[in-house]
Amino acid sequence: MKQIIVAQLPKGALTPDHFRIEDAPAPVPGDGEVRLKVILMSIDAANRSWLQGATYRAAVHVGDIMPTYAICEIVESRAPGLSVGDIVAAEAGWAEELVLPATSVAQMPDLRPLSHLLSVYGIAGKTAYHGLVGIGRPQAGETVLVSAAAGSVGGYVGQIAKAMGCRAVGIAGGPEKCRWVVEHLGFDACLDYREPGLNRALKAACPDGVDIYFDNVGGAVLETALFHMNTRGRVVCCGAISQYDSTTPSGPRNLPGLVVVKRLRMEGFIVMDHAADDAKALASLRKWVQAGQVKVTEDIIDGLDHAPQALIGLLAGDNRGKRMVRVAPDPA
Amino acid sequence: MKQIIVAQLPKGALTPDHFRIEDAPAPVPGDGEVRLKVILMSIDAANRSWLQGATYRAAVHVGDIMPTYAICEIVESRAPGLSVGDIVAAEAGWAEELVLPATSVAQMPDLRPLSHLLSVYGIAGKTAYHGLVGIGRPQAGETVLVSAAAGSVGGYVGQIAKAMGCRAVGIAGGPEKCRWVVEHLGFDACLDYREPGLNRALKAACPDGVDIYFDNVGGAVLETALFHMNTRGRVVCCGAISQYDSTTPSGPRNLPGLVVVKRLRMEGFIVMDHAADDAKALASLRKWVQAGQVKVTEDIIDGLDHAPQALIGLLAGDNRGKRMVRVAPDPA
Repeated sequence: MKQIIVAQLPKGALTPDHFRIEDAPAPVPGDGEVRLKVILMSIDAANRSWLQGATYRAAVHVGDIMPTYAICEIVESRAPGLSVGDIVAAEAGWAEELVLPATSVAQMPDLRPLSHLLSVYGIAGKTAYHGLVGIGRPQAGETVLVSAAAGSVGGYVGQIAKAMGCRAVGIAGGPEKCRWVVEHLGFDACLDYREPGLNRALKAACPDGVDIYFDNVGGAVLETALFHMNTRGRVVCCGAISQYDSTTPSGPRNLPGLVVVKRLRMEGFIVMDHAADDAKALASLRKWVQAGQVKVTEDIIDGLDHAPQALIGLLAGDNRGKRMVRVAPDPA
Repeated sequence: MKQIIVAQLPKGALTPDHFRIEDAPAPVPGDGEVRLKVILMSIDAANRSWLQGATYRAAVHVGDIMPTYAICEIVESRAPGLSVGDIVAAEAGWAEELVLPATSVAQMPDLRPLSHLLSVYGIAGKTAYHGLVGIGRPQAGETVLVSAAAGSVGGYVGQIAKAMGCRAVGIAGGPEKCRWVVEHLGFDACLDYREPGLNRALKAACPDGVDIYFDNVGGAVLETALFHMNTRGRVVCCGAISQYDSTTPSGPRNLPGLVVVKRLRMEGFIVMDHAADDAKALASLRKWVQAGQVKVTEDIIDGLDHAPQALIGLLAGDNRGKRMVRVAPDPA
């Protein structure tokens, strides 16, 4: 079987040279372990941060299999309660197969296609739902603005907003993404933050102001968005990608002034905090998907070999929706 | 009767030369108007901003009586429903007497001393209560941090926090204010932001972190406080005085990053938004005042002539608690 090894740790930009593909014997499970066939690997910006040192998980070292969150099928079990054919999610690795302790895998509902477990019914869809509905609390007729609108989370935010009767305006990088967000996802408008005049464009796209800003980026885009918030608006703080690689982070200069004057609520969250509402989220998402109100946006790249390029491309922002790598077909 | 006129508009620091005291005939009310005797004038940092141009109220011009929020007694009435002897609050002026339309005055409860209507039972006390209780939602045992702790609002915030079973830590400017906050108001600690090492001092004073930060200042103090917030902490955004006069405002560089990572809620408010809960606020404040748990902090300067210096001093931060100028004694 094949696996991909971290050949060297990146200092600057990630390149294919940081990885090495190799053959290895199929791993053999011990007592209490299972052997997994990897089906779909989630490709996330966080993967890059794991190569920087310890974060919320241990640091990755040269010689390790590159880690990933993945959907897998159990092909051999030496653990009670886990059977061959079960579909599980696990912190796995860039490999065709691997062995994990039973305690490291989570049973998944057996729905098809399995890719939905990483996109609309996975962390992306649940993050969008819990952030927008649980934190933002949209009312029909309100205007919802979301940055990184072509990303794995942002695309769902705008579609859920539309399904709930709101106006949805996106912000994304480049004219092609913006067109895709409007034409494919059905947003009312999408603004290119790389163009000059974002402030004026926002004013035109949100004539009644912004009631909810779902912020994935922080920095200058947040600062600009704050000027357009309505009184008692909500800023859902989901991420701050503009700041992650910055050596000179800059805070929005209108904070906290505008929070006071406009009586804004800015609130951060992580998806796990809202696990108690997961069933409600999944039921709503399923209803909207079935009604065609929410399109499932997946960016699936075929073949384990392409994982390095899939991650490098994601970091350059070339994905549309949730990016993943397919290692094996869904089981029947 | 005497009145104080704006003699010239300040360009930089406010000085006594910007005002002129003069004698004037007692004003005469027309139909639908009342003649007011001014008893207590509220001295607020906002007064200075009125001299800068139009804000939430019309700009003040050279030759105008300096405006002020004041507690007054009706001494002549040509308006139905308003009687001689009634106590009212009004957007009045720096004067012994003035005439206003009946629609511009608000009836006040007839309690003594009247100064309490500007301090603990006025905007200062209600702002502290609604911000801390309504937005911050303290639980017994939590740590509440408040900046401008010797100011008109901050002192009540810490005392209410203590009354609700919390640890109260203040931030103020200078060792004397800090001592007063601890020894007179009963805070557990008070830190001098002018001293180097605020970050270390905060760590020592808040060994269990900060659950609620009541922010009156924004800027560098907010940035430092954010590092000490506990997960799911609340930042009550009440003011940003550090930024008002700045020509190069700087946003906290850890925003919105820390809001996401720590799942913070930052929320702005103005006291009028919570008017529906005023009765509850006043009942609680009265109970705490009567039990000696909340000390009424008033900084009353006697004599209309001293109003300019009272405002100039307030802007330099030399007040302790709610500053006001007494123009006439409370009626019996």
